[in-house]
Amino acid sequence: MSVITLTTDFGTKDWFVGTMKGVIASIAPRCTVVDLTHDLRPRDIRSGAFALAASHRFFPKGTVHVAVVDPGVGSRRKAIAVQTARGVFVGPDNGVLSWALAREKVRAIHALENETYFVQPVSRTFHGRDIFAPVAAHLSRGVPIQKLGPALQAFVRLDWPEPRERRSGIEGEVVYIDRFGNAITNLEDRLLRDSEGAFCEIYGPRRRVCPLKSSYQAVVPKKPVAVAGSSGFLEIAVNGGSAETTLRVSIGTRVVLRTGSPIPAD
Amino acid sequence: MSVITLTTDFGTKDWFVGTMKGVIASIAPRCTVVDLTHDLRPRDIRSGAFALAASHRFFPKGTVHVAVVDPGVGSRRKAIAVQTARGVFVGPDNGVLSWALAREKVRAIHALENETYFVQPVSRTFHGRDIFAPVAAHLSRGVPIQKLGPALQAFVRLDWPEPRERRSGIEGEVVYIDRFGNAITNLEDRLLRDSEGAFCEIYGPRRRVCPLKSSYQAVVPKKPVAVAGSSGFLEIAVNGGSAETTLRVSIGTRVVLRTGSPIPAD
Amino acid sequence: MSVITLTTDFGTKDWFVGTMKGVIASIAPRCTVVDLTHDLRPRDIRSGAFALAASHRFFPKGTVHVAVVDPGVGSRRKAIAVQTARGVFVGPDNGVLSWALAREKVRAIHALENETYFVQPVSRTFHGRDIFAPVAAHLSRGVPIQKLGPALQAFVRLDWPEPRERRSGIEGEVVYIDRFGNAITNLEDRLLRDSEGAFCEIYGPRRRVCPLKSSYQAVVPKKPVAVAGSSGFLEIAVNGGSAETTLRVSIGTRVVLRTGSPIPAD
Repeated sequence: MSVITLTTDFGTKDWFVGTMKGVIASIAPRCTVVDLTHDLRPRDIRSGAFALAASHRFFPKGTVHVAVVDPGVGSRRKAIAVQTARGVFVGPDNGVLSWALAREKVRAIHALENETYFVQPVSRTFHGRDIFAPVAAHLSRGVPIQKLGPALQAFVRLDWPEPRERRSGIEGEVVYIDRFGNAITNLEDRLLRDSEGAFCEIYGPRRRVCPLKSSYQAVVPKKPVAVAGSSGFLEIAVNGGSAETTLRVSIGTRVVLRTGSPIPAD
Repeated sequence: MSVITLTTDFGTKDWFVGTMKGVIASIAPRCTVVDLTHDLRPRDIRSGAFALAASHRFFPKGTVHVAVVDPGVGSRRKAIAVQTARGVFVGPDNGVLSWALAREKVRAIHALENETYFVQPVSRTFHGRDIFAPVAAHLSRGVPIQKLGPALQAFVRLDWPEPRERRSGIEGEVVYIDRFGNAITNLEDRLLRDSEGAFCEIYGPRRRVCPLKSSYQAVVPKKPVAVAGSSGFLEIAVNGGSAETTLRVSIGTRVVLRTGSPIPAD
Repeated sequence: MSVITLTTDFGTKDWFVGTMKGVIASIAPRCTVVDLTHDLRPRDIRSGAFALAASHRFFPKGTVHVAVVDPGVGSRRKAIAVQTARGVFVGPDNGVLSWALAREKVRAIHALENETYFVQPVSRTFHGRDIFAPVAAHLSRGVPIQKLGPALQAFVRLDWPEPRERRSGIEGEVVYIDRFGNAITNLEDRLLRDSEGAFCEIYGPRRRVCPLKSSYQAVVPKKPVAVAGSSGFLEIAVNGGSAETTLRVSIGTRVVLRTGSPIPAD
């Protein structure tokens, strides 16, 4: 039993994801297909990259991960497959795979050019169905990545906003906002050790301060709190509410983690 | 082949449900995972409880039902598994399982404390992925519930609004509104026997009256009608429209079922 | 391993689709269920018909396709199964299956009347769960279509807007708008051969003109373009944007494909 995951901006209003699964079922009928999400904002490559990075390590070894956020479909952008020690990553070569691959040992990168593994005729606008889904299905059945097309030396990488050391603490920013309105930052949770008394400054439209705690309920309802989130990064949340709407944070909002000094008045 | 169902308020915008399925596929690769819904309003325990109660009896014997509406994640609330004659129910001990269990013969209740069956390290904010999904997967593979943690005597029960006998009829209320705007009440359909000529009074912003019929089409388009709904309860609907918007009903709206007298003018 | 597809207007907010899958898993546990979409607008039979027509040919031979857009549930409308060379189509006899069947060789049409294959008791409002899901599951296990009920001679067909030859070109209309705001027309892509220099006139609130190209990126960002879409029809798109909002097109908007003359100024 092998697993293929799908991460797209195709939505679920139309039949697009369903037809990808039809193609997969035609080639690899015993494969389990798991939706990571299809509700990425159209053309939002960075959120797709984050979603895949936050989740791929929870899947079995050998899983084939397909990510299709593909504003360049039909243009000259490459389609690629990347083999790692844990699985294979398939998608357009526009960076959508790159954050998941950042810490993986890459064994091979191949362009998808062998039309034997495509659905024919290949449309100009839906490579998810005609290239990525069938290639993933063939990979899950054991087709070696080398058969898919020529080897490449590199793939496109999205830049990642690195946290910066400041006199006042460690400065980062919001990189993703989830369905609950929790704001996930680029501050990795290993920065949160020995953090007794630590707090966060959040530079939304208005500066806000909140303590670093181990759960949402450590502050009173409707108050902001910073926690070590499940994705491995510091999250800004509001107990029983939404940090997005309460603090009016958005992707790019600056966050400073300060340690070792008492939390000041808000 | 075993089945695990998932009922959450995680939405489908992020990767949360996908990672739960990755964890399950890692432990129980031959298991079929079925989504009941992930679009419950955040923290709406009662709607989650109703969704599970309305659907669990349509699944095969031995199904493991996971419900995660968990505003208390990371606090001291217990995590539990409940064995019945038909299957196992897994979730936080906050009442979300209780309406499904109301008529089931409970055989065992256990706290989830044996970390052998968790994903490590356990996050403080995402027990769906780290506790409930792996425990469900192990249960579906045959791990006995007794191994999960100490036996408990009881679980938290949500109160259920019981219908009341009035001189004018039976008084109930709206407990759920579905995607079509149909208003599901707490009046069980066994009350609807011998109901020739019965009608409903609906106490929304304005009192409305509608007949009890056997299908939506028994009234003219855009007119309200009460029917025996598919969940086992009386539903208020509008033929070809939405009771929610047409009658402005909401959860808690009072409904009186009257029998044996002619329907009065609206 | 057999496949059942589901196309409904049930949404994913409630447990309706989940219970259909529970019924299927109870009867045909080894079956793979694929969602085409559940987010059709309530009672939008035509969009359901289009979704099924655009996708069924990507599924394995023998697939059972279930489409439930069923405003007449509980009334006298028939429930049917239609056997073709490629698979079986199951749903209410209101036209929702008809566009998918338009080019298929129909081998048998049967009314669903044999209650042996239903979930009992059959509700008056949810035949998706009580009739269509169990019938599909039995079909996928090999129950012959003849056992389901009496043979019929015909099924209800939705009319399809045929393109018209005009002196100025070929006139069609928008038949579907997808999640990206691309407007799919009724002009089949075989009309697009030898189309060097072809362009489209779009009669939205304001007349617009755009070139026929082979990909979205063939025009500058935010400009409209006509392409041969993945569904087999001409689509009106906006590079990096939404034709629906930019051009204010909607279902029924008139589109004229002109060939062989230079594109005029907009």
